[in-house]
Amino acid sequence: MKHFLLILALFVLSTANLAIAQTSKAIEDFKPSEVNQPGKAFPQVNSEGRVRAQISAPEAKLVQLDIGGVKYDMVKDDKGIWTGESAPQDEGFHYYQLNIDGASVPDPGTKYFYGAGRWGSGIEIPASDRERYALKDVSHGLVSELNYYSKLTQAWRRCFVYTPPGYEANLNVRYPVLYLQHGSFEDETGWPTQGKANLILDNLIATGKAVPMIIVMDNGYAYKPKENSAANARPVSVFEEVMITEIIPMIDSRFRTMPDRKHRAIAGLSMGANQTMRIIMNNLDKFSNYGGFSGTSNYPSASEIDPATFLDGRFSDGKKVNGQIDVFWLGLGTKEPEPFPGSIGAFRKMLDKQGINHRYYESPGTAHEWQTWRRSLYEYTQLLFK
Amino acid sequence: MKHFLLILALFVLSTANLAIAQTSKAIEDFKPSEVNQPGKAFPQVNSEGRVRAQISAPEAKLVQLDIGGVKYDMVKDDKGIWTGESAPQDEGFHYYQLNIDGASVPDPGTKYFYGAGRWGSGIEIPASDRERYALKDVSHGLVSELNYYSKLTQAWRRCFVYTPPGYEANLNVRYPVLYLQHGSFEDETGWPTQGKANLILDNLIATGKAVPMIIVMDNGYAYKPKENSAANARPVSVFEEVMITEIIPMIDSRFRTMPDRKHRAIAGLSMGANQTMRIIMNNLDKFSNYGGFSGTSNYPSASEIDPATFLDGRFSDGKKVNGQIDVFWLGLGTKEPEPFPGSIGAFRKMLDKQGINHRYYESPGTAHEWQTWRRSLYEYTQLLFK
Repeated sequence: MKHFLLILALFVLSTANLAIAQTSKAIEDFKPSEVNQPGKAFPQVNSEGRVRAQISAPEAKLVQLDIGGVKYDMVKDDKGIWTGESAPQDEGFHYYQLNIDGASVPDPGTKYFYGAGRWGSGIEIPASDRERYALKDVSHGLVSELNYYSKLTQAWRRCFVYTPPGYEANLNVRYPVLYLQHGSFEDETGWPTQGKANLILDNLIATGKAVPMIIVMDNGYAYKPKENSAANARPVSVFEEVMITEIIPMIDSRFRTMPDRKHRAIAGLSMGANQTMRIIMNNLDKFSNYGGFSGTSNYPSASEIDPATFLDGRFSDGKKVNGQIDVFWLGLGTKEPEPFPGSIGAFRKMLDKQGINHRYYESPGTAHEWQTWRRSLYEYTQLLFK
Repeated sequence: MKHFLLILALFVLSTANLAIAQTSKAIEDFKPSEVNQPGKAFPQVNSEGRVRAQISAPEAKLVQLDIGGVKYDMVKDDKGIWTGESAPQDEGFHYYQLNIDGASVPDPGTKYFYGAGRWGSGIEIPASDRERYALKDVSHGLVSELNYYSKLTQAWRRCFVYTPPGYEANLNVRYPVLYLQHGSFEDETGWPTQGKANLILDNLIATGKAVPMIIVMDNGYAYKPKENSAANARPVSVFEEVMITEIIPMIDSRFRTMPDRKHRAIAGLSMGANQTMRIIMNNLDKFSNYGGFSGTSNYPSASEIDPATFLDGRFSDGKKVNGQIDVFWLGLGTKEPEPFPGSIGAFRKMLDKQGINHRYYESPGTAHEWQTWRRSLYEYTQLLFK
């Protein structure tokens, strides 16, 4: 929650001056958002990246478009239809909502996405690199939904599994696996939906830029059952244990994987980057590739890292780490607010000091949002299993 | 004592009046709906099947719960939180929405479902037979999302494919296939989501009541590209052609099917029942099993059917039909409104007159809604491929 509020506060601060600029005249080339519900004309997006929303609310006193931490007042016409638009937004995907007389609700014009701790509206500002995740006339893999019971959490859990084109036909072929995690207040639907992980891989595989791989997208929230904890105790995350003792064995038994560390990668965004870094460093017998998208395990600190103590000294022997990890990859958007640049910067300094090989990527013009992570996945997966 | 009884009587009378004014007093055993978003306490459902919704809308003048064709006024407390409840609803799944000062919006408390032509709120009234589609500790099949390009419609389409438990392990086994269609203003997400087709089959297969089968759930809306039609022409449905020349060949090439008519079934609900009856009767070389859930191709007419002319005389030779179709199945909810009982009744009369074997099922206490169709699928699939 603290993490969420901090991000929220940073969004508000970083976009506060945009609110002032809102009055400037919009270019009239608005088109329906590509993630609208079928047949819905609104919301729309123009070439500047402004979002124009519209809703019928004849009796309402105040309707606002709430996007990027700013609430934009909408205007009512004589038929009771409210219309309003935002300042230009960064390219890519954003969560947003409408406010109707104080009620924060999804816009009935859009499809819904899980993020920011709720199922709610999303919008796509067409990005310069949207071809990378466009639905093209190439062979498409499958995204499969898999329900499973977790003994550790004593609850049903779900993951989505991407199997690459050819998986069903080439019955003698086994594939490497990437375990790919979402961020805080998101869930296992993030990567296969707004993350477009399947389409990014379909396109990379079609052009030979990435090797065919399986991608497992699970839920990073996993807690011990409440009955085992004191009444008001903070829930204890057992995600690492779930990953190692439940998810990986299930995937290796159900799918045609190459079940060894050389053919296993793990990556995550934000909270997922933090989690997966801990998981790989504690389980180097299981993984040999790491991707941290907009996150590291020293989050949110920007202080110098002492490799002797950080993560129980897992980075203390740089040479050993280089021998164990084939790809160590970090990414960040150029518009990300603190504490991300600070904490990732401090982490990279530690890596450099320890002589640990790593790749670093910056997504131009994007913040702590999905366009940064789509690009990170696009870059990272091209390096894997080669 | 007399005085006390008088007061009691007046109290009872006054509460009775209130009951008439709105709805009778609800039993206070409300619990959060099972399809709420994670962590959301509202909406709730009680043992009578009443729905209680709640939303913060401090500045609103009128907030209503809109369910089952009735709008129930909600009441605001001093914190600006509106609460209200419906009359008892039928058991099973229902679509609904909230109205805030004239704006019809999804309830931010629920997950969202596609139906009634929009993504919006849904609620589950726990049904007497809910064990049939409960997530249980049995082997679970996969539900896979498959994107494909349709040359006929010149558009990307999507289907969901259920593969039964064991499909990934038993690489030499081939499976029969059920093609299963949604109703009007619904889409390919209906059956794998609110329809719970995968869970119904997982449970039936686990107890040996149904044979392992593949289920293909596609979108029943398929039109010729607009450029081929006159400007204001009604769109021409090519769904049958898409099914026969695009979907079936794709499924047979991508999945391990038994690709012959004896091992193919087709079924649908409402509009889907109408469509799939036409498809099987026009393509008896492709299918040998039909299921019509709350629909027939004479919809909406309740007039006597002339088998010589109806569907180009496909039912004119009853003996021939009996030889061609292994399972001909019809279902209806006992609370369905006209024209469903009338048109399905007229259709059954024609079948009887022609001596055509068929099974008929009535779902007790359910209307033209998903509980009728879950039960229909449960009954129908037990008869298939045996």
